Amino acid sequence: MTTTADLQTVLSRCGIDLPRYSGHDISVHSPIDGAEIARLAALPVAQMPQVIDRATQAFEQWRLVPAPVRGELVRLWGEELRRAKADIGHVISCEVGKIVQEGLGEVQEGVDICEFAVGLSRQLHGKTIVSERPGHRIMEQYHPLGPVAIITAFNFPSAVFAWNAAIALVCGNPVIFKPSEKAALSGLATFKALERAIEQFGNRAPAGLAQIVLGTSDVAEALVDSPQIALVSATGSTPMGRTVGPKLAARFGKRILELGGNNAMVVTPAADLDLAVRAIVFSAVGTAGQRCTTLRRLIVHRDIKQALLDKLLPAYRSLRIGDPLQAGTLVGPLIDKASFDAMQHSIEQAQQQGGQLLAGGQRQLEQSFPHGFYVAPAIVDMPAQTAIVQHETFAPLLYVLSYDELAQAIALNNDVPQGLSSCIFSNDLREVETFLGAAGSDCGMANVNIGPSGAEIGGAFGGEKETGGDRESGSDAWKQYMRRTTNTINYSRELPLAQGIQFE
Amino acid sequence: MTTTADLQTVLSRCGIDLPRYSGHDISVHSPIDGAEIARLAALPVAQMPQVIDRATQAFEQWRLVPAPVRGELVRLWGEELRRAKADIGHVISCEVGKIVQEGLGEVQEGVDICEFAVGLSRQLHGKTIVSERPGHRIMEQYHPLGPVAIITAFNFPSAVFAWNAAIALVCGNPVIFKPSEKAALSGLATFKALERAIEQFGNRAPAGLAQIVLGTSDVAEALVDSPQIALVSATGSTPMGRTVGPKLAARFGKRILELGGNNAMVVTPAADLDLAVRAIVFSAVGTAGQRCTTLRRLIVHRDIKQALLDKLLPAYRSLRIGDPLQAGTLVGPLIDKASFDAMQHSIEQAQQQGGQLLAGGQRQLEQSFPHGFYVAPAIVDMPAQTAIVQHETFAPLLYVLSYDELAQAIALNNDVPQGLSSCIFSNDLREVETFLGAAGSDCGMANVNIGPSGAEIGGAFGGEKETGGDRESGSDAWKQYMRRTTNTINYSRELPLAQGIQFE
Amino acid sequence: MTTTADLQTVLSRCGIDLPRYSGHDISVHSPIDGAEIARLAALPVAQMPQVIDRATQAFEQWRLVPAPVRGELVRLWGEELRRAKADIGHVISCEVGKIVQEGLGEVQEGVDICEFAVGLSRQLHGKTIVSERPGHRIMEQYHPLGPVAIITAFNFPSAVFAWNAAIALVCGNPVIFKPSEKAALSGLATFKALERAIEQFGNRAPAGLAQIVLGTSDVAEALVDSPQIALVSATGSTPMGRTVGPKLAARFGKRILELGGNNAMVVTPAADLDLAVRAIVFSAVGTAGQRCTTLRRLIVHRDIKQALLDKLLPAYRSLRIGDPLQAGTLVGPLIDKASFDAMQHSIEQAQQQGGQLLAGGQRQLEQSFPHGFYVAPAIVDMPAQTAIVQHETFAPLLYVLSYDELAQAIALNNDVPQGLSSCIFSNDLREVETFLGAAGSDCGMANVNIGPSGAEIGGAFGGEKETGGDRESGSDAWKQYMRRTTNTINYSRELPLAQGIQFE
Amino acid sequence: MTTTADLQTVLSRCGIDLPRYSGHDISVHSPIDGAEIARLAALPVAQMPQVIDRATQAFEQWRLVPAPVRGELVRLWGEELRRAKADIGHVISCEVGKIVQEGLGEVQEGVDICEFAVGLSRQLHGKTIVSERPGHRIMEQYHPLGPVAIITAFNFPSAVFAWNAAIALVCGNPVIFKPSEKAALSGLATFKALERAIEQFGNRAPAGLAQIVLGTSDVAEALVDSPQIALVSATGSTPMGRTVGPKLAARFGKRILELGGNNAMVVTPAADLDLAVRAIVFSAVGTAGQRCTTLRRLIVHRDIKQALLDKLLPAYRSLRIGDPLQAGTLVGPLIDKASFDAMQHSIEQAQQQGGQLLAGGQRQLEQSFPHGFYVAPAIVDMPAQTAIVQHETFAPLLYVLSYDELAQAIALNNDVPQGLSSCIFSNDLREVETFLGAAGSDCGMANVNIGPSGAEIGGAFGGEKETGGDRESGSDAWKQYMRRTTNTINYSRELPLAQGIQFE
Repeated sequence: MTTTADLQTVLSRCGIDLPRYSGHDISVHSPIDGAEIARLAALPVAQMPQVIDRATQAFEQWRLVPAPVRGELVRLWGEELRRAKADIGHVISCEVGKIVQEGLGEVQEGVDICEFAVGLSRQLHGKTIVSERPGHRIMEQYHPLGPVAIITAFNFPSAVFAWNAAIALVCGNPVIFKPSEKAALSGLATFKALERAIEQFGNRAPAGLAQIVLGTSDVAEALVDSPQIALVSATGSTPMGRTVGPKLAARFGKRILELGGNNAMVVTPAADLDLAVRAIVFSAVGTAGQRCTTLRRLIVHRDIKQALLDKLLPAYRSLRIGDPLQAGTLVGPLIDKASFDAMQHSIEQAQQQGGQLLAGGQRQLEQSFPHGFYVAPAIVDMPAQTAIVQHETFAPLLYVLSYDELAQAIALNNDVPQGLSSCIFSNDLREVETFLGAAGSDCGMANVNIGPSGAEIGGAFGGEKETGGDRESGSDAWKQYMRRTTNTINYSRELPLAQGIQFE
Repeated sequence: MTTTADLQTVLSRCGIDLPRYSGHDISVHSPIDGAEIARLAALPVAQMPQVIDRATQAFEQWRLVPAPVRGELVRLWGEELRRAKADIGHVISCEVGKIVQEGLGEVQEGVDICEFAVGLSRQLHGKTIVSERPGHRIMEQYHPLGPVAIITAFNFPSAVFAWNAAIALVCGNPVIFKPSEKAALSGLATFKALERAIEQFGNRAPAGLAQIVLGTSDVAEALVDSPQIALVSATGSTPMGRTVGPKLAARFGKRILELGGNNAMVVTPAADLDLAVRAIVFSAVGTAGQRCTTLRRLIVHRDIKQALLDKLLPAYRSLRIGDPLQAGTLVGPLIDKASFDAMQHSIEQAQQQGGQLLAGGQRQLEQSFPHGFYVAPAIVDMPAQTAIVQHETFAPLLYVLSYDELAQAIALNNDVPQGLSSCIFSNDLREVETFLGAAGSDCGMANVNIGPSGAEIGGAFGGEKETGGDRESGSDAWKQYMRRTTNTINYSRELPLAQGIQFE
Repeated sequence: MTTTADLQTVLSRCGIDLPRYSGHDISVHSPIDGAEIARLAALPVAQMPQVIDRATQAFEQWRLVPAPVRGELVRLWGEELRRAKADIGHVISCEVGKIVQEGLGEVQEGVDICEFAVGLSRQLHGKTIVSERPGHRIMEQYHPLGPVAIITAFNFPSAVFAWNAAIALVCGNPVIFKPSEKAALSGLATFKALERAIEQFGNRAPAGLAQIVLGTSDVAEALVDSPQIALVSATGSTPMGRTVGPKLAARFGKRILELGGNNAMVVTPAADLDLAVRAIVFSAVGTAGQRCTTLRRLIVHRDIKQALLDKLLPAYRSLRIGDPLQAGTLVGPLIDKASFDAMQHSIEQAQQQGGQLLAGGQRQLEQSFPHGFYVAPAIVDMPAQTAIVQHETFAPLLYVLSYDELAQAIALNNDVPQGLSSCIFSNDLREVETFLGAAGSDCGMANVNIGPSGAEIGGAFGGEKETGGDRESGSDAWKQYMRRTTNTINYSRELPLAQGIQFE
Repeated sequence: MTTTADLQTVLSRCGIDLPRYSGHDISVHSPIDGAEIARLAALPVAQMPQVIDRATQAFEQWRLVPAPVRGELVRLWGEELRRAKADIGHVISCEVGKIVQEGLGEVQEGVDICEFAVGLSRQLHGKTIVSERPGHRIMEQYHPLGPVAIITAFNFPSAVFAWNAAIALVCGNPVIFKPSEKAALSGLATFKALERAIEQFGNRAPAGLAQIVLGTSDVAEALVDSPQIALVSATGSTPMGRTVGPKLAARFGKRILELGGNNAMVVTPAADLDLAVRAIVFSAVGTAGQRCTTLRRLIVHRDIKQALLDKLLPAYRSLRIGDPLQAGTLVGPLIDKASFDAMQHSIEQAQQQGGQLLAGGQRQLEQSFPHGFYVAPAIVDMPAQTAIVQHETFAPLLYVLSYDELAQAIALNNDVPQGLSSCIFSNDLREVETFLGAAGSDCGMANVNIGPSGAEIGGAFGGEKETGGDRESGSDAWKQYMRRTTNTINYSRELPLAQGIQFE
């Protein structure tokens, strides 16, 4: 095992002076072998007011820095991420168990979003609008919003921070980053790249522009509760969202919630089955099934179900499971034992609800890694969409359902409380467009001939229903990081009223 | 008094068969003379599930009706409103006490929004987006959302329903309208025009497409709590929003909250004082101070304060207060005694907090209208922005504050919990742009040389902070009435992954 | 024959006082029977300067009328068109020979575009843009352009004027309408509806806001040559565009050219052949093949060619050809003898170039209508895309070509000088998306499973290459009717230079 | 004189292997001292077909490379420009005489536009549009256009190529660059940076993606005339545009013309005169008056004219004129003797037309630089806007005009054939908004409190009237580099016709 030894060097190259963060509160383990790789100090919640005050003060200045200049900071960050890509990727692999390719891909998302945000920094377009009154005009402006808290989950410890921070910074907002305790080092490594960018950027960046808080849930709560935090962007479970959402609503704070997904693929008789199999494998077992966009439900037309399984099961059997740092590994470990137990529990439930385990489910490599939780990705054939299928199990567990008519497939796709991602495999235009149409998938993302995971940063990312309803990343998601203002300007010498009202 | 007699005829012309709605639950009074003008039956809350089911079923069909065809229904509604403008305006005047011009103006807003929505019905534009992968493309579509509940306040009993319903219908959503109990007839008159449009539109409109529920707060709560209601658009007080918002957040329901405002005008030495005085009078006393955008705080540069008051006080003294149906009246009655009492209480508080009553505040016309609550619009000079000034009193009560530097004026403008509307009177470009800029007014609307009230429907209407943070009416506010979906389409024979990930 | 008798009544109902326009210059014939239905005076070209001056003066006022108020005029016009729909449709049928349904459909396009333009009248959105300099902001405004000349062809004598004038008027521009001499009455009838709207609109419309000039090509040239005419929107042949375009370019005048089309349909093995046949028939023989978007080339996969022809030829044989005013007629007359001769000539050429006439081509009903030119829609099977196929023949003449690979079909589609409309019939997603993609159809319009003709007004209409390259009607085509201005506003007390230049 | 010696080193660092380009056709002189700095071979026009064919072939591949990947090439170019900024700036200074700051600023524009274009590379947004027909949808896509020719003038030898090429490349188009013969080396240096980027980018870039042609006007004509060149972006004089525009129109080629400007500043009594003076000096004498956006006309309110001149004339007198490579120099040489002669001629004309020379006009430093044409920037007070004032003289020659009413000032601003840039100095909101409004400046750019020159790349750059009417650089100018296509997709089993037409 070279992991731990290498890791210290890599962390140091990432600019993380580990002793500075050391403490007794947060124990970070590598899921690869279960070894503790760091023990960090948690920020006492009593210090949160100062943290938040610093961000508030930074906002006073940062909002007045021109957006293209703010973009220059984000450009520098992108350059730092590009430079540190291999190192940060390695930290991610060690800390959350992603295979090398996925660790690199996650950092690449950071690079991509920085470039996208730099482009935005000369746009942030509102509208000019014609007025019904002579000598008047209307315009809309988007202005900086205030401090943004970014609370992320373990499974995208780098990219989700980058998505949010790159846009937030360009939009004129300071950021406070609360990474998952399970992935604090990856968060830190990504944050350090930002710190280096800030250093190069110089004194145009106010103190307190970007802060990281390593801590436990009380720290996250302090951010959610503070009226000074204008926007909380929180990624995690639906129960978390159900707590955070109402708290923010009660104080009229803004939010971006990215919560659970229970993503389906519909495979129709008009599908390219080989393409479908490749997509299923990547999206169901990639990141060991621990993406919010992981494929969890396979809705196959009855006529092709067996043919699809005949291709899929061998593919599952040939998956290389093991040390994610090794070349050729496709499935790394689960994040921890709780995750493994939850998967076992779900398989049992599924079986009790009529399901038949077609593949996987067993623990792997227990001898080599007695404290690492590797599992063979599982497929369970279900007679119906029972309660357990409607529940998100954060592991490589794929349910198979069958359908006869497309309308049924769409109904199954939609009949879960979550609404993140979905896809259809078909080369039939009518099927495809129906799936994408008003009576089709009710998810925030609906793809065709690609799996539900692996979104590009150019589109808006997020989902409906219990997934939260908000969007981040591309398209016009930046608008959520700004406040909009409608301006009507009278430059005449008269005071006509709207709607033709006379009031004299 | 011709009000009541006339009213029956007018209601009948509006298509309201009063006996059909009669009951013992809701007593509607005219604020003009306090007379009861109708006694209506409230819908028992137990019937709400059926109401909501009807809307849910209507949605299944309506979402598939092409948007331009949906637009045709809204066009017909606009025509009906245009035709019934005088009548509905009259009902509004009788029921909530608006002067004739304002009653007409309110219906005109309905006409305007219908025309605007018809235009939208051939747009509802999403984006096509280039993909990073060969043989792929991305697009965003906006699809119908589901049943929309529209809960309105007494003060815009017609227009706020029209704003929401016109957009919601074009966007493919059925509507359920819960008007204020104090303004049920105005709501009903507006709704009847929609019913007539639906009748002409014929069987392309599913049953249950538009429903009105006359009832008490339990009916509104049923709408807020139902998971079938996709969007609740609620206009009212901040405490209401503080209840409704978290409930919706807890069930991941969408919302448009239009809550309290505490709108200020900054008058600088570079202002056209005559223009400012006219604007102050209209925006502070129009609708007897009962608009959410009513001017409540006047922030005047110390050097011109006296000059401004010297013009303003005589204008206030000359205001014609009285029967809103009479030509020439500018100030009608308050909605009820509670409103009058609240105003008196606020004046007292203001005086206790150092304020000096400069004008008005006394009850008027008590002899002629012993049960009508007419009041002389009040001006209170305040030494500082005390607690009462930060509080919204829904009556014609204007506080005067002074400032020395523009930055102070902006700080005063922003230092209230509400964030709806604001304005500056100045002909000085730097002052004006500073007020509109990133460090300027923090309100959803910031105007120049017009008062805070009287928005055109072309812009987005709504405010920040305790005002709710949402938008309705023009610009791209329609997006809140739809669900968005990001579609990535692979039409190649390959399955490249985003971010260049290799997974084989 | 009731045509002529009826027509006088209808014209009178359309508000056309025929004697007022009578003269000896322009002889209008009905293609139904070749009878002269009116003889009109042409405006002497010497009067064009006054016409143009009136428009120029009208512009001075109209540009300052708020856009939503301008929209009100267009709304009134739409109402007038709706009211006069049957009458104007009848005039169109009499004058250019469209069947009743198509005459009505053409007026409906006018109604639609008016509603669309009313919606635009509260938008005309430019952008607000962030600046790289502190205390600066950027915005773009769209302003009225100046007088717009609308020169139309005989085949859409009403809708094309409406498309252009509705948008032009809302954008703040006076219009001068030069209809085709062959369709002056239809133009006049449409224009009269606008005149009635202007009358209702009252004195907010300046004199000279909308003018019609009946005349010959010298009048059109006067418009093209006048530096006072800001925009010339001309519909007609490619040779016309080749003359007009350079003249406008030489004087830096703006233009919208809608020129020839040579529109193809690709039918693949994955097509719904019945749907395809219906689409072919409508788009190849509708308006007797005299739409700029008429289907002229059928590119069929070799494997299904015979099957398609087996369905298509009987459909062609069953077409009811005859008096367009009679219920059930699907194919009316050609506009005149020259058109008939050109078609005959093309058929001969095609045969000389290897083609085989599969259907039609013969004159019909010569006995009943010795001066009407009815023709059986023709189909010619071509061995290759020869010179005549690349040429637009404005008649119901459909060439059939075959292909083996989709890439060939696309190459054939693109290998003509025109670039207006195109379509593919296929239910195969890959085929469809390839056809719509970057290496697909090079036309301004590319449809799927609908014919090339019959565009909705919500999209931008127009084509590439010799079709002209410009757009009108929906989407953001309105921008061509306005001038844009980029405004950078410095409200600071400093004068920083862009790109960080120091200059002291 | 270190210029020439240094230059060889710098050119070599820029990657220019001078011998490779040497020949006898084009003699490049430094305006600093008139010395020949290179003698280059012109491409024989007979080779243009191959050049154009290479671009055409490159287009076949490049259009299919995903836009974000194309963006990566442009990102690399931006990096190369950033790295070579000082060197390319030096070449510009030597070759066209810009002062060091302006040379650097010009390269910075290239860097900026590359970053902007990278952002665009994940946007290139068309619209999705709702259809009036069930089971149909509409979308617009923007696709690559074809080879783009970029013909630039001497005065922005680097930035204008970068503006066009960065956008063109991201949009999927190969580029052919024809720099001014007077500034071939600066063009070459900028092009070389692109070549280096292409090399790093590797084989995803087809051969012929970017080509430079050093040559004379016949080479430019070959580009204008070739039907394979989809878009010609030409910067230069109005006479050039008057030739190029019609040629392109005749072959239906697309164009971006950036022609002459005659840019004015209005200074009102409400102006900050010190700010105005600084802006006048920079915008009138910067680049020795040889920007297309140079300030040429000063329109001052009569009441403040003397006060303004009292500040302006001393500023003019203190301008450091001389070797542009020397620190502190603000005014470098004119490009050549012809330019100097034209300026002298204009001054004479102006004097004959009533003007009074208030400052400058004389040749400077003739002793030190007998072959360099340095001139003292001139101010001529004019009694009226005579013919010479309406003419663009490409030199530091500023005319002063006076006005009494703002409307007069605007009329003067507009009463020239050109329409590029304009500005107003005023702190009076009404004046400013009037100037920016529908009846205000008719220029493509209208600024407030900054001069007419020095646009940021975020806005669209270009002008109306004889300036050409087109736009490049920021905002949505990218649309001109693409072809748009409207797609209507029927995924139903029916074939409804638009406008409700029945055709059975």
